[in-house]
Amino acid sequence: MTASTHPAWDGIVLGVSLATLDSPQGYAEIHDGALAWKGDLLTFVGARKDLPDAPQRLAREVIETKGWITPGLVDCHTHLVFAGDRAREFELRLQGASYEDIARAGGGILSTVAATRAADESELLRQSLPRAHALITDGVTTLEIKSGYGLDFENERKMLRVARRLDQLGIGVRTTYLAAHALPPEYAGRSDDYIDAAIEWLPRLHHDALVDAVDAFCEGIGFSPAQTRKLFEAARSLGLPVKLHADQLSDLGGAALAASFDGLSADHVEHTSLDSVRAMAAHGTVAVLLPGAFHVLRETRLPPLDAFREHGVAMAVATDCNPGTSPLQSLRQAMQLACTHFRLTPEEALRGATVHAARALGLHDRGVLRVGTRADFALWNIHHPAELCYWLGGRLAQAVYAGGHRVI
Amino acid sequence: MTASTHPAWDGIVLGVSLATLDSPQGYAEIHDGALAWKGDLLTFVGARKDLPDAPQRLAREVIETKGWITPGLVDCHTHLVFAGDRAREFELRLQGASYEDIARAGGGILSTVAATRAADESELLRQSLPRAHALITDGVTTLEIKSGYGLDFENERKMLRVARRLDQLGIGVRTTYLAAHALPPEYAGRSDDYIDAAIEWLPRLHHDALVDAVDAFCEGIGFSPAQTRKLFEAARSLGLPVKLHADQLSDLGGAALAASFDGLSADHVEHTSLDSVRAMAAHGTVAVLLPGAFHVLRETRLPPLDAFREHGVAMAVATDCNPGTSPLQSLRQAMQLACTHFRLTPEEALRGATVHAARALGLHDRGVLRVGTRADFALWNIHHPAELCYWLGGRLAQAVYAGGHRVI
Ligand SMILES: [Zn+2]
Ligand SMILES: [Zn+2]
Repeated sequence: MTASTHPAWDGIVLGVSLATLDSPQGYAEIHDGALAWKGDLLTFVGARKDLPDAPQRLAREVIETKGWITPGLVDCHTHLVFAGDRAREFELRLQGASYEDIARAGGGILSTVAATRAADESELLRQSLPRAHALITDGVTTLEIKSGYGLDFENERKMLRVARRLDQLGIGVRTTYLAAHALPPEYAGRSDDYIDAAIEWLPRLHHDALVDAVDAFCEGIGFSPAQTRKLFEAARSLGLPVKLHADQLSDLGGAALAASFDGLSADHVEHTSLDSVRAMAAHGTVAVLLPGAFHVLRETRLPPLDAFREHGVAMAVATDCNPGTSPLQSLRQAMQLACTHFRLTPEEALRGATVHAARALGLHDRGVLRVGTRADFALWNIHHPAELCYWLGGRLAQAVYAGGHRVI
Repeated sequence: MTASTHPAWDGIVLGVSLATLDSPQGYAEIHDGALAWKGDLLTFVGARKDLPDAPQRLAREVIETKGWITPGLVDCHTHLVFAGDRAREFELRLQGASYEDIARAGGGILSTVAATRAADESELLRQSLPRAHALITDGVTTLEIKSGYGLDFENERKMLRVARRLDQLGIGVRTTYLAAHALPPEYAGRSDDYIDAAIEWLPRLHHDALVDAVDAFCEGIGFSPAQTRKLFEAARSLGLPVKLHADQLSDLGGAALAASFDGLSADHVEHTSLDSVRAMAAHGTVAVLLPGAFHVLRETRLPPLDAFREHGVAMAVATDCNPGTSPLQSLRQAMQLACTHFRLTPEEALRGATVHAARALGLHDRGVLRVGTRADFALWNIHHPAELCYWLGGRLAQAVYAGGHRVI
C-alpha cells in the first residue's frame, strides 16, 4: 500500500513577479515567483525554483500566468455607506462656494444625513454595494467604513449594520463609529449634549459587535478637542481603539490628541504641527493621507511629509470615499493623487495602501505577502509596480483574492 | 389581405432622462424620454409621451430602463497607440526631473519611439487594445488617435494602420498624422531635413487612406512655427485639415498659426495669448483642453478660459492618453480634472467631451442627440449629468452604443 498524495495547499500562482513589501524599504521584489495558500493563509511566498516539490503535487489548483502580485489593497478610511450623492454641490463649489460656506448654509453633509436617514437598511445596502464593488475591482481586499451620516442611535446602527453586511462581497470590513462627524439638526446649539448622547449609544453598538474603532471630526466646523477627548475616554473604557479626522482645515492639535490615546491613526493631517508629528511617532500613530479630498477641495497646504519621514511616522493612503469632498471609488486613483499632489513615490504610495493602511486599522495579519498572513492579494496586468500609481482610469487587476477566495 | 406590421426602427430606449446637448447652453434635458434608432442613425429623440405609436409597434427591440443617456463621448486627442510604458519615468519625475530635463537626456518620448518601432503591427495592436477598450467602457464612441512614435515612414504607417484597426471595437476612429511629434535620433541636428521627410511621407500615407488630419508639436523642444507652417502647407495642398499641439510650455503663437490654416483645433493652449484667442474665434478653431497632462506635470499656468468664453471659442476636453505626460484611460476622469483644475462647470466639461470634441475632429454628425445624427450614445447609472464629472473611478456606464450597435 502506498499513501495517496493529497496536495496540501489549495492554490498556487506561478510565473508572476511578487512585490511582497516584506522589507523596511523597496518593493521586496521576487521574479519568476510563486505564491501559495491554504484556507485563508499564505503558505509559500518565494521564487518558483525554491518550491519544495512539483507544483501539481503541492496544490490542488495551479495557475500559471504573468504580471505582478501585490498584497491586497487596504482602504483604511472610507465613508462609503451613504444614500444620495452631492453632484449638485460639486457644481456649486465650481461656482465658488467653499466647503465651510456650504456647511454653514445647512447644505453639505446634512443633505447626506437626510438621505441616509430616509433610506431603509436594504436601500442603503443597495446604494452602497456598487461603490464597494468598484473598490474591490481595483484591488481592495480590506475596507474600513465609518458611520456618521445617521447621527442618531437607530441610523448610526443602520449604517454600521450595512457596513458589516458588505462583507458579503468576500472581503474584510472594519467598522468605525463616527457619530461625532457632524451635529444633527435636532441638537443645534447643543454640541456637548450631542457628544453625551453619542457616548451613550457607543456601548450599545459595541455590545452588538458593530464597532471596531471610534473616530471623530475634530475641527472648527466639527467637534472640539475637549469633546473629542471625552468621546475617546468612553472608547478607552470599552477597550476600543481610536482614530481621528485631525488638522484638515486648521491645527487644533488633533493628531497629538489622537496619539495621546495611542490612536491607530490621525487622518488628513494637512495642518499638523511638528510637535504633533513627534507625538505620533512616539505612540506609533499612523498618518493617513487623503489626497482625494485635497484634490477636490483644491487645497494647497501639504501635510508635513518630510517631518513624517524624518520621525518615522508611517504614512497610509486612503480614498476617503464620501459624497461631499472625495467622491473617489478607486484606491489606485488615490495613490495616483498622492504621488501627484503630495509627491509620494510610487513605493511609498503602495506601502501606504497596504502595510501602513493595515497598521492604521490595527491589523497585523495582512498588508504584506508573507507566509502565515492572510491570502489577500491582487494580480495585476502590469510590468512594474509603479504602474499602479501611474495610470488614471483603466482596469489593471486581472484577479483579486481575499482570504484565499477569488473575489474579482 | 392586411399589410403586416414591420417595426420601422431597430431599437428604442425608454424610461431614461436624456441630456441631448442640442441647445447652445444647458444640458437640454428631457425627462421620461425615449431614444430610437434605425441603422446607425437616431430616429427619435424626445419625451416618451410624444412617440407616434406604441413602442412595440415602432421598434424591434424595446429597452425599458433607468438612468441618463448622453451623446457618446468623443475623445478628440489621444496618442494611445504605443508600446511599453513610462512608469519608471513617472518615478523619476517624482524625484524632481522636469519633462524638458528628461527629453534632453534622451529619455522620455524617445524610449517610447524605440519600443514602438520594435513592436510589430500585431504586438502594437495587442498592447493598444486594452487602452481603447478602457476608454469605451467609460463611454467613448469616437476616438482620435495620433501617430508620432514611429518617426519614419514604415513605423508611422504601422501606427496609423493599428489605429484604423481599432475600429474593430465597433467605434469611430479618426487618425491624425503626427510625424512632427519629436525629432528621431537619426535626424539629430537636422530638424529641417526631418520635416522635409515627413512632408514626403504624407501623400503616400494619405493615398492609403490612413490620414484624417495633420498635427505637429510646435514648441521650443519640438518644431518651430516655420517648420509647422511648411508641414501645414503640404497638408492643405492635399486637402487635409490641420490641428496643433500649441502653446503648452511657452507662447510661440501656435494657436494663431493653426487658426490661420482654418485649423480644426489648437490643443493644450495654456500659454495662448489674447491675440491668438481672437484668431481662433475668427476661424472657428476649437481649444482642446488636456487637463491630464496639466495634472501629471503639475502645471500652474491655466489656459485663458475666460477669454475663450468671452470670444466664443469652443472648448473641448480630451484625455491626451499617452505614456509620458498623461497616462489617462478614461475621458470621464479628464472631465473631472477639467472641472477641478480648470474650474470648468460639469456642463462645459460634458459639452467639451461631446459637441465640441466632435467639432475639433471636423465631425458634424455626432456629439448631440438629435434625429439624423449617429446613434452613438451612452447610458449611465446616474441621477444627474454632473455626476459624470464628480466621481473619480468606479463604473458608471451601463451600456454604450456606437452606430446603433452595443459596444459595451
Ligand atoms: Zn473622512
Ligand atoms: Zn498630445
